[in-house]
Amino acid sequence: MRLVVVGAAGRMGRMLVKTVAETEGTTLVGAIDREGSALLGQDAGTLAGIGALGVPLTDDPLTAFARADGVLDFTMPAATVTFAGLAAQARIVHVVGTTGLSEQDFARLDAAARHAVVVQSGNMSLGINLMAALVRRVARTLGEDFDIEILEMHHRMKVDAPSGTALLLGEAAAEGRNIALKDRSVRVRDGHTGARNPGDIGFATLRGGTVVGEHSVIFAGAGERIELTHRAEDRGLFARGAVKAALWGFGKKPGRYSMADVLDIAAI
Amino acid sequence: MRLVVVGAAGRMGRMLVKTVAETEGTTLVGAIDREGSALLGQDAGTLAGIGALGVPLTDDPLTAFARADGVLDFTMPAATVTFAGLAAQARIVHVVGTTGLSEQDFARLDAAARHAVVVQSGNMSLGINLMAALVRRVARTLGEDFDIEILEMHHRMKVDAPSGTALLLGEAAAEGRNIALKDRSVRVRDGHTGARNPGDIGFATLRGGTVVGEHSVIFAGAGERIELTHRAEDRGLFARGAVKAALWGFGKKPGRYSMADVLDIAAI
Amino acid sequence: MRLVVVGAAGRMGRMLVKTVAETEGTTLVGAIDREGSALLGQDAGTLAGIGALGVPLTDDPLTAFARADGVLDFTMPAATVTFAGLAAQARIVHVVGTTGLSEQDFARLDAAARHAVVVQSGNMSLGINLMAALVRRVARTLGEDFDIEILEMHHRMKVDAPSGTALLLGEAAAEGRNIALKDRSVRVRDGHTGARNPGDIGFATLRGGTVVGEHSVIFAGAGERIELTHRAEDRGLFARGAVKAALWGFGKKPGRYSMADVLDIAAI
Amino acid sequence: MRLVVVGAAGRMGRMLVKTVAETEGTTLVGAIDREGSALLGQDAGTLAGIGALGVPLTDDPLTAFARADGVLDFTMPAATVTFAGLAAQARIVHVVGTTGLSEQDFARLDAAARHAVVVQSGNMSLGINLMAALVRRVARTLGEDFDIEILEMHHRMKVDAPSGTALLLGEAAAEGRNIALKDRSVRVRDGHTGARNPGDIGFATLRGGTVVGEHSVIFAGAGERIELTHRAEDRGLFARGAVKAALWGFGKKPGRYSMADVLDIAAI
Repeated sequence: MRLVVVGAAGRMGRMLVKTVAETEGTTLVGAIDREGSALLGQDAGTLAGIGALGVPLTDDPLTAFARADGVLDFTMPAATVTFAGLAAQARIVHVVGTTGLSEQDFARLDAAARHAVVVQSGNMSLGINLMAALVRRVARTLGEDFDIEILEMHHRMKVDAPSGTALLLGEAAAEGRNIALKDRSVRVRDGHTGARNPGDIGFATLRGGTVVGEHSVIFAGAGERIELTHRAEDRGLFARGAVKAALWGFGKKPGRYSMADVLDIAAI
Repeated sequence: MRLVVVGAAGRMGRMLVKTVAETEGTTLVGAIDREGSALLGQDAGTLAGIGALGVPLTDDPLTAFARADGVLDFTMPAATVTFAGLAAQARIVHVVGTTGLSEQDFARLDAAARHAVVVQSGNMSLGINLMAALVRRVARTLGEDFDIEILEMHHRMKVDAPSGTALLLGEAAAEGRNIALKDRSVRVRDGHTGARNPGDIGFATLRGGTVVGEHSVIFAGAGERIELTHRAEDRGLFARGAVKAALWGFGKKPGRYSMADVLDIAAI
Repeated sequence: MRLVVVGAAGRMGRMLVKTVAETEGTTLVGAIDREGSALLGQDAGTLAGIGALGVPLTDDPLTAFARADGVLDFTMPAATVTFAGLAAQARIVHVVGTTGLSEQDFARLDAAARHAVVVQSGNMSLGINLMAALVRRVARTLGEDFDIEILEMHHRMKVDAPSGTALLLGEAAAEGRNIALKDRSVRVRDGHTGARNPGDIGFATLRGGTVVGEHSVIFAGAGERIELTHRAEDRGLFARGAVKAALWGFGKKPGRYSMADVLDIAAI
Repeated sequence: MRLVVVGAAGRMGRMLVKTVAETEGTTLVGAIDREGSALLGQDAGTLAGIGALGVPLTDDPLTAFARADGVLDFTMPAATVTFAGLAAQARIVHVVGTTGLSEQDFARLDAAARHAVVVQSGNMSLGINLMAALVRRVARTLGEDFDIEILEMHHRMKVDAPSGTALLLGEAAAEGRNIALKDRSVRVRDGHTGARNPGDIGFATLRGGTVVGEHSVIFAGAGERIELTHRAEDRGLFARGAVKAALWGFGKKPGRYSMADVLDIAAI
């Protein structure tokens, strides 16, 4: 499958370039950076630290998309909606890992998805998407007899808490119980808290060292606990998930898909 | 729901008596011990350490079943098939946690299940049954890119390894991958083992202290791991699961059911 | 060793009675409850659920202490200082697990310790005391290159956060670094927190199910983590630690001792 | 501190080059490869993937050592004893992470250590060395009432079990108990094992994915467990430990030292 990486000079773009080059069955055929970038013309592979690939950075997505089967996009909302239009025109798979999309942005993705395959997710990791599906199901099965607690640990430089992924897992738990997370989440415990309220979903945050990302969802009942844990060892997870999504989407009929579709776990 | 406990003087029987007495919606109406037992006539609640319940041990299941809605049975295969016949006659729910049943014994349970509800499982814990269903599904979804390892820890007195529950989880993983566990399980690693074979399912065993039972199934892929863990804190889990199974079976149409039916997780 | 339990009708008192009866080398010779208690005269063993021991509850500590070698005391500060005086008079070992002692109370314990052995600790568990000593040492050895995070989980009924034991472990970490915990502890993280400050000691709290108590201290550095974890499986830990302290103190010269002395870990 | 890396073209050598370049207070002044290597003359930094450092690979250690303060050596025993002689002559710190040294090799290191500082360890990670010291101490303090189990997990390509580090931790536990590991280690459990023997030290091995290395030592007693865990996130740990050892050794008086000296944990 011939792939283009947009935003190829950024940190995530370089990871995508590396992953495309290293994955069997995918070839890098284009690398796009923004207009006016000082890096235009440089080799995308060299920038990614894996040696020259013969693919120079350009600022011309239209030409790149015309000879590709898919595009990997972890850029910014404004760029993503533009790329969505171009990818739809070229009838190629558009994998969107961009975060911060508005309702309006999603409407534009949906419009593009009438003509081409769009795979969009707030988290492209296979493991996290699978875990979210499991959490939803376990929460539904066990009910409020089991208390739900969500624990995460990240490196010392992370500036927000809880992590976006912890909140995503909390949303999955709330969906499984058919409640709204915001009404039942306990994000802080300190001092005299009183006993736990049945049905609450608690969060706890650890920060330290160089931990890439660890998330646990604990279901604690009378005399037993079930814990689901995800440990990320490197930041290449999202890139690998995006490439897997592209391969999955190749040849599918137009439409907007999620990682749950890619993993075939929508029905868990 | 009116319940009888058979084998009520044994360790598991006493736990069942205690759990029936403590669960809302269930009442102990009979407690059966084997013919000739020195304890016949004693109060089942007193034996269970929770004070007299007004239910003396008898060796007459027929009379007890006649005024009950269900029977909880963690005894021996020979006794269980007899109880199955009597429970079918009385049209009451028969919850079977007895282990070591033969093909022939199962045929007798199936015969009984034409007239009454029979719920049978090798492990009555809600958490373990749910975990097995999750393991089956995760194994199917992730495929051989993720290595499966099963770890368990039990107290120092346990005499076999791996635990029956670890093997049950291994079977679930093998089913998810559509392979036979016995062909692919690695139960021992020591010395020069060589690299891991893709598709193997590994087991590791810890023994020590008074640990009631902990099981983890680890799916280890490139750069990420998913771990499912169950921790049992006390031995009352199986009794609570059995009572839950009885309550679930009350009013269902005759048939043989499993804990997966009780939990409604057959389709995960 | 002949032991008396004071507050023998309370929850902790019953656990102490049971533990004394079950420990090799110790015998229960007295059980004290407060004056006017409705339970005076009842057998301490029966109350503890282990069958009669021939030791009725009395409200006369003086007589009981006179024929004992030690007393186990998890009562209230006012009672404890009275018992300290009586134990000193009788020259017997006084094991004090009472919490909430004031400076003045400690002065009274010190006075008693001129005549008899007093072993006092805010947490009588062997494991937690050992862990605190290890945490102090690791914090000293690793310095601020390793971030310290303290995680605890307890059952759903616990009303305060972080647990007293988590704070005790935090104090040990702070001592190891020669800082004041209150100046550097981060007890809450939510929303935009900014990056972690070097030298901070973070706390995180989980609540759920029936978890007796789990504590982890995580030292997270560049590319590696060391974690020290304590898991309590039952509430008998403190009773076992108290009995061990009594046995250790028997025959020692008068003085006030801690569990660090009992474990011989003061110098770690 | 001016440092030379020997074996600078190998995988560990490149990691050392990178670490020296990135550590404050150290400068790379020489990079040695074996005579006849095709890479002689190439820049050590370029080979390490961090850009040119102006330090070409040479096969002349004598000249390099003459203008250095220390040498980092993770090579082979035969090379290491030669380097030891040259480093002693140059009176520079020799950090030895080479494995497989014989008694005779150690005798040559000791001879060199009469003239210069030699720091040698089978595992240069700070965390693992600290953990071994803690394990020794905990084993000594708790005695055989607590069962010791050692668990490790490594990536799917690892060919031996248990890991060398797991055995090192087992040795530390055995030392703490004053027993010989080989007499009391249980490296395999399968089938009917019988109950655990008091005093045994058990091992369990997990293999899968890309796990760099995780080790836990579990002390399991009646009703409580203490677990010490080390998690390695990347393979740079050993390099960082070696550089720390060099810095520590700079200016010390001649002698053979271990990582326990570097960490000042010999007396735990």
